[in-house]
Amino acid sequence: MLLKSNNDSAIAPLPDRPQHGGNLVWAASLAHCSPSAILDFSASINPLGPPKSAIAAIQAHLGDLKAYPDPQYSALRSALGAFHHMPPEYILPGNGAAELLTWACRDLAALDATCLFTPAFSDYQRALKAFNARVLARPLASQDDRHWNFEQALPLEAGKQRLNGQALGLLLNNPHNPTGSLLTKHRLQPHLHDYALVVVDEAFMDFLPPDEQQSVIDLVLEQPNLVVLRSLTKFYSLPGLRLGYAIAHPDRLKRWQEWRDPWSVNALAAAAGAVMVQDTAFQQQTWEWLAAAKPRLFHGLASLPGLQPSPGAANFLLVESDRSVVQLQMELLKRHQILIRDCLSFPSLGDRYFRVAIRTETENQRLIDGLSCIL
Amino acid sequence: MLLKSNNDSAIAPLPDRPQHGGNLVWAASLAHCSPSAILDFSASINPLGPPKSAIAAIQAHLGDLKAYPDPQYSALRSALGAFHHMPPEYILPGNGAAELLTWACRDLAALDATCLFTPAFSDYQRALKAFNARVLARPLASQDDRHWNFEQALPLEAGKQRLNGQALGLLLNNPHNPTGSLLTKHRLQPHLHDYALVVVDEAFMDFLPPDEQQSVIDLVLEQPNLVVLRSLTKFYSLPGLRLGYAIAHPDRLKRWQEWRDPWSVNALAAAAGAVMVQDTAFQQQTWEWLAAAKPRLFHGLASLPGLQPSPGAANFLLVESDRSVVQLQMELLKRHQILIRDCLSFPSLGDRYFRVAIRTETENQRLIDGLSCIL
Repeated sequence: MLLKSNNDSAIAPLPDRPQHGGNLVWAASLAHCSPSAILDFSASINPLGPPKSAIAAIQAHLGDLKAYPDPQYSALRSALGAFHHMPPEYILPGNGAAELLTWACRDLAALDATCLFTPAFSDYQRALKAFNARVLARPLASQDDRHWNFEQALPLEAGKQRLNGQALGLLLNNPHNPTGSLLTKHRLQPHLHDYALVVVDEAFMDFLPPDEQQSVIDLVLEQPNLVVLRSLTKFYSLPGLRLGYAIAHPDRLKRWQEWRDPWSVNALAAAAGAVMVQDTAFQQQTWEWLAAAKPRLFHGLASLPGLQPSPGAANFLLVESDRSVVQLQMELLKRHQILIRDCLSFPSLGDRYFRVAIRTETENQRLIDGLSCIL
Repeated sequence: MLLKSNNDSAIAPLPDRPQHGGNLVWAASLAHCSPSAILDFSASINPLGPPKSAIAAIQAHLGDLKAYPDPQYSALRSALGAFHHMPPEYILPGNGAAELLTWACRDLAALDATCLFTPAFSDYQRALKAFNARVLARPLASQDDRHWNFEQALPLEAGKQRLNGQALGLLLNNPHNPTGSLLTKHRLQPHLHDYALVVVDEAFMDFLPPDEQQSVIDLVLEQPNLVVLRSLTKFYSLPGLRLGYAIAHPDRLKRWQEWRDPWSVNALAAAAGAVMVQDTAFQQQTWEWLAAAKPRLFHGLASLPGLQPSPGAANFLLVESDRSVVQLQMELLKRHQILIRDCLSFPSLGDRYFRVAIRTETENQRLIDGLSCIL
C-alpha cells in the first residue's frame, strides 16, 4: 500500500491529546486511576529495567546533587567512549537525546532543505520547525507483507538535488519509529556523501543483539557530516532521568556546547550513565527477553480479528487496525487501564494504526486478552 | 572608581580555567585531593541544604524515573504558582535557569540590541552569542565606599535609543552577580516601558528575607515584555539536580516549549521542586543563618591586609584584592583545599577581584584563617 501524502492537516490530533507516548497523567485522567496503575504500552521502554546497577549508582551519588556537574562530563564521556571504541571528544552527553536533536536540527536548518521520511517521530517536526528548517517529506510505503519499505525510500532525489546546487540534510531514525524498519549500514553508507549533513537517530539500536546492529557510529571518525544520536533511557528504562548523547565531529559538538547551557545533564544521570553501559548482564538479559517476547506478541496480535502487525527490528510493533484506533485506545484504557500509542501524531498514518511496546510475557498477554475482549 | 572598558581580551582566562564557579573536578586536580575534599566558596550555594524535605521527595520518587515526566509539569507548575501567587500558565520549569536563559536570549537576539551591565555573569554572553545578539555593555562603577552603583547605571540611554527607532532589550540580574548590588523594584519598574523585552534573572533573590526582596514577578501579569528567571538549586543546594523556572506571559512560554524538547526537567527535579518551595522552616533557617554569617564574614575579610569586600545583598561577597587573585586562589587551593571564585570570566574585573559564597560560621572562619596564612 502506498500511503497518501504527508498532509499534516489530514487528521488533527485532539487539542489535549498527547503528541508522545508515555503520557501517564493524561491516560490516568481518562482511566480514572493513578498514573502508576496504567499498564503502559505507549512508551517503548525496556520492561526489565531499570538495571540494579543504575539504581545503585543513583543512590550512591545523591550527595553529588550538592555540587554542579562537571561541565565537560569527563567521566561519562570516557565511559561512553570506551563503550563505543570512540575518542571521548566525539561524544556529547545531553538532557535526553531530544535535547541534542534540537541542536542537530539547528545545524540542519542552516541547509537548503532536510529530507525526512514520513511517518516521522513528531519531535523531529518540532525541532526542525524551531529553527525554520525547510522539510522535504519522503513517504514510506508498506508492502503486501507489511514490511515497510525503508531502504527503497533512501536514494531520494539526492543526486538530482545536488545537481541543482542545494545543500541537503537527511534526518532519519534507524530502526525507524514507528514502523520498526531497519536500514543496513551497508545500504546507508554510500548515501552519506549525498548530503551536507546526515543525522541518524539510533534511539532504539541498542535493542538489537550486537551481531544484528546496524550502527554507523564508527563512520563518524571519517565523516564530519555525520551525527549519530543515542538514547540511554529507553534500553535502561529511565526516561524520567533524561540522558542521551550525540556522536559527531568535536568541532560540531563544541559549537553545540556554546549554544546550550553548561550543565545540561544532571549529576545522577551522569553517574548512572557511566555505569549502565558496562552492565553486560542486563544487556544480555534484554536481548534474550526480546528475542522470545517479540515473535509471541506479533503472533498474538496477528491472530486477533482486524489487526495486522508489521515485522519490526526494535522493541515495539506497529499495528494496522480495521477499526478506529482512538476508540480502541479509549476502551482499553477505561476497561483495562492499558495504554497503547495511537498514531495521530504521525499524520500519514492517521486513525488506523497503533504502536505497542514489547513488554514482559505476562504483560503482553494482558494486552492480547484486553484486545480480545474488545475486538 | 570607574572601571575600564569592558574589553574581553584584557585578561584572557587560562585555557583550562573554568568559566564558572563550582568546578570541583578542576580544583581537585590542582589541590591533589578528591573533589569532595574541596571546601567550595566559588559556587554560591546555600551551605545548610539540601533540605531534608527535598532529599525525601527525591528518594520517594526514584520509581518515577521509569516513566517520562509529564511534559506539562502540571504539579510542579501548580506548586510554583501557589508559591508566587501566579497562575501556573505563567510559569515554565526548565533544566536549570541556564536552560531558560538560552531561550530568553533567543528572544532578546531578535531585537536590535540588548543592554547588559558589566561585569556580567559569563553565561549571559554565551546565551546572547548563541543567537548572535548585539550587546550594548554598560559598565557599573563602584563608589568610594565600595558600593557598586547599580541603580545609577540603569537609565542608560534607553530614551534616546527609542527615539532612534531601535527595539532594545535589557538583561540584568538582581541581586547583581558578582557585585551583590540590589536594585529596588521601585527603581526598576519605570524603566520596564523603555525596553521591548526585559529579562530579570532573580537567581539569588530568594536569599533575601521576604520583607527585603525586590522581585518583579507580580509585574509580569501586566507586562508581557517582562521575563523573570529563577533558580531553585542555589537556595536549596541542589545544583546537580538542575531546576529553574521562568515567569512570563503564557504566549512566550508556549513558544519556548515549541523550541525546546518536551521533557526538559527530569522527574526527580520535578518532584523535589514542588516540595521544596513549601519548606518554610528551611527558608526561615536560611534567612537567619545569612543575617548572622554575612556581617561576620564581611568584617573578617575587611580586617585582612589588602582585601576590601563590597557590601552585597545576596549570599556572596565580591572582594577587591591588592595582589594577584590567581596566585591567591592557587595558594588557598594547594595549602588549604579551599576554592574561591576568581573573576577572570568577568573581563572588566580582571585579576584583582574574587567572589566568595557565604558558608557556615566554621567554614567562613576556615577561609579567614587560610587567607591570614597567605596574606
